[in-house]
Amino acid sequence: MRILITGAAGMVGRKLIARLAKDGTLAGRKITALYLHDIVPAQAPAIAGVDISIHTSDFAVPGAAADLVASRPDVIFHLAGIVSGEAEANFDLGYRVNLDGTRALFDAVRLAGFAPRLVFTSSIAVFGAPFPDVIPDEFHPTPLTSYGTQKQMSEALLADYTRRGFFDGVGIRLPTICVRPGKPNKAASSFFSGIIREPLGGQEAVLPVPRSVLHTHASPRSAVNFLIHAAEIDGNAVGQRRNLTMPGVAVTVGEQIEALERIAGPGVARRIREQPDETIWAIVKGWPTRFEARRARELGFAAESSFDEIIRAHIEDELGGKIS
Amino acid sequence: MRILITGAAGMVGRKLIARLAKDGTLAGRKITALYLHDIVPAQAPAIAGVDISIHTSDFAVPGAAADLVASRPDVIFHLAGIVSGEAEANFDLGYRVNLDGTRALFDAVRLAGFAPRLVFTSSIAVFGAPFPDVIPDEFHPTPLTSYGTQKQMSEALLADYTRRGFFDGVGIRLPTICVRPGKPNKAASSFFSGIIREPLGGQEAVLPVPRSVLHTHASPRSAVNFLIHAAEIDGNAVGQRRNLTMPGVAVTVGEQIEALERIAGPGVARRIREQPDETIWAIVKGWPTRFEARRARELGFAAESSFDEIIRAHIEDELGGKIS
Repeated sequence: MRILITGAAGMVGRKLIARLAKDGTLAGRKITALYLHDIVPAQAPAIAGVDISIHTSDFAVPGAAADLVASRPDVIFHLAGIVSGEAEANFDLGYRVNLDGTRALFDAVRLAGFAPRLVFTSSIAVFGAPFPDVIPDEFHPTPLTSYGTQKQMSEALLADYTRRGFFDGVGIRLPTICVRPGKPNKAASSFFSGIIREPLGGQEAVLPVPRSVLHTHASPRSAVNFLIHAAEIDGNAVGQRRNLTMPGVAVTVGEQIEALERIAGPGVARRIREQPDETIWAIVKGWPTRFEARRARELGFAAESSFDEIIRAHIEDELGGKIS
Repeated sequence: MRILITGAAGMVGRKLIARLAKDGTLAGRKITALYLHDIVPAQAPAIAGVDISIHTSDFAVPGAAADLVASRPDVIFHLAGIVSGEAEANFDLGYRVNLDGTRALFDAVRLAGFAPRLVFTSSIAVFGAPFPDVIPDEFHPTPLTSYGTQKQMSEALLADYTRRGFFDGVGIRLPTICVRPGKPNKAASSFFSGIIREPLGGQEAVLPVPRSVLHTHASPRSAVNFLIHAAEIDGNAVGQRRNLTMPGVAVTVGEQIEALERIAGPGVARRIREQPDETIWAIVKGWPTRFEARRARELGFAAESSFDEIIRAHIEDELGGKIS
C-alpha cells in the first residue's frame, strides 16, 4: 500500500501521517511507501519498512502534478489548499492553487491511467446563507466565499472524474475542526477552539460572540478518522454522489463552556472573557449551524457524540492527559 | 446599448438576434451595437442604426476572450458551448470549451474592469438522478454528464464573480427546448420535438418511449424571453443566488400528442409511430420530470402555460401559421 498525501505539512496532514505510522496498514494492507507533498518540506516520521519520500513543489505549476503521481500510489489524500481567508484576500492565488492545482492533480491521475482511491477534503464552506436550521444532504451548495466556490468546483470535478473511471474519488466536507492545536489565528472561527485550548493551557481566552451561537464541530482525531474511513470505504456503496457532508457535534458556545467546566472545573472556565465583537458576530451569523449528514453516518463515518468527548480528545492528544 | 452574444450562430442565438433586431431596444435603451461571436461566422441581420460586427474565434484560445470584450459591451449573452453528447464523447473538448472557455470569458471581463450584465445559459443537466418528482429550487446539482458538470462549475464561477463585483451575472437553467426547428439529431431528447415537428411538416415521426414519460419543456420563444428578462432584471432582486431554474410546461408524451391532435387533427397525430427503443428509454428514465422554479417565477420569468401554446408558437414562428 503506497500512499500520497498532499498538504502533508498542515495540521490535518501531520496527524494523518502519525496515525498511518501508528496503524502500519490502510484498508487491511501493509503500508510500504508514503509520498509526502507540500509547498514546504513535510516532516517525515521514521517508520521501519516504509519508504518515505518528501516532495516539495507547487503542483499548480505545469508538470509538477505528473511528477507527483508518477509513482502511481494506491491511495491519494488530497489535503493541500489555500485557506479561506487567504483565498478571499488573494483571488488569483486561491483559484490557482485550490482549483487549478486540484484539477492538475486530477488530470495527472487521469493521464497516467491508474485509478487510485482519491480522498479530497472539501468543506462546509460550500454552503452559503440562507439555509435551514439543519442542512439536509440534498441542499444545494451556494458558497459565499471564493474558497467555498473552489471547493464546490473541485467536488464537481471529483464526481465527474470518478463517474468516468479516472479514479475512485470520495470528497469529505469537514465541519469546523475543534479543538485546533497551536496558537490562535486570524480566522473568524478561531475562538471556537480558543475558548477551550487557552483555558486548558492556563491562558485567558476571549469570547467575541453570544453564548447562544450554535455550531458544528469535529475533533482533529475525527477528521483523521474520516480520512481513513474515506480511504477504506467500498466505492460502490458510495454510489454516484461522491461528496459527503461529515457528521459532527452541534452545540452552542454556552454548551461548549459547560462541557469545559464539567471536565476541567469552574476555575478553568472562568479564564474565558466575554468581549463582544460585532464584526466577528456578523460573519459567524452567516454560518450554517447543523447538518443532517445522514448519508455519511449510514456509510459509517462517525464523529464524537458530545462536546465533552471533543475536549477529552484534545487533552489526550495535545496535553498528554494533563490540564494546567 | 451594446450587446455581445457568444454562440450567436446557434439556434437560440439566431432567435435572440432576430428578437433584438425586432425590439430595437434592451432594458429600455436603444441597441447601438451587436457583437456576434461564434466559432463559425454568425449571420448578421441588417438593422438601421446598429453597428454589427462578426467575430469568429475559439475563445478557449488564450487572448481571444480579451479581444472579444475589448469593446466593453453593456450586456453579454454567453450562449456558446459544446452540446451534451459531444462533451461526453470528447472529454478534452468539452472541458476546454465549456469550462475553460467560459472562465476565459469571465476572466477577460474581470481583467478589463467593466462590470456588464452577463447572462449565461446553463441547463437542467446540472441535476442527476435520483431526484424527487418535483425538483425544488434548493435541490443540489449532482450532474451525471461531463456537460452538466461543466455547466455546474460555470454557474459556481458566475456566482462568485458576481459576488466579487466583476460582473453582474444571471445564470438561467434551460429546460428541454421544444419544438426545436430543423432536422432530427442524435440527441436522446430529439423525439420530444420530432413527434410534433415532423407530423406538422407532413412527415412520419418515431416515438421511442412510452406515452407515460413526463418531461418539462419550453419553446424557443420562451428561451429568448428568458434571456431578455435575465438581461433586464434588477440584479439586487436576484440576490446572491445567481443561478435560476427556468419554468416550463410539464407534460407526458401522451399529453403532447393529445395537444397535437387538438390543434392539427387526428390525421396529423397518426403520423407518430410507436417504436420502443430500450436504449433511449434507459437514458430518458434518468432525466428529471418537473421543476418547482419558484424563484424564477417570482422574479418574473414566464414560460407557456400549456403544451398547446408551445405547439402554436412553433406553427407561428416556423411554419408561417400553416400546417401541412
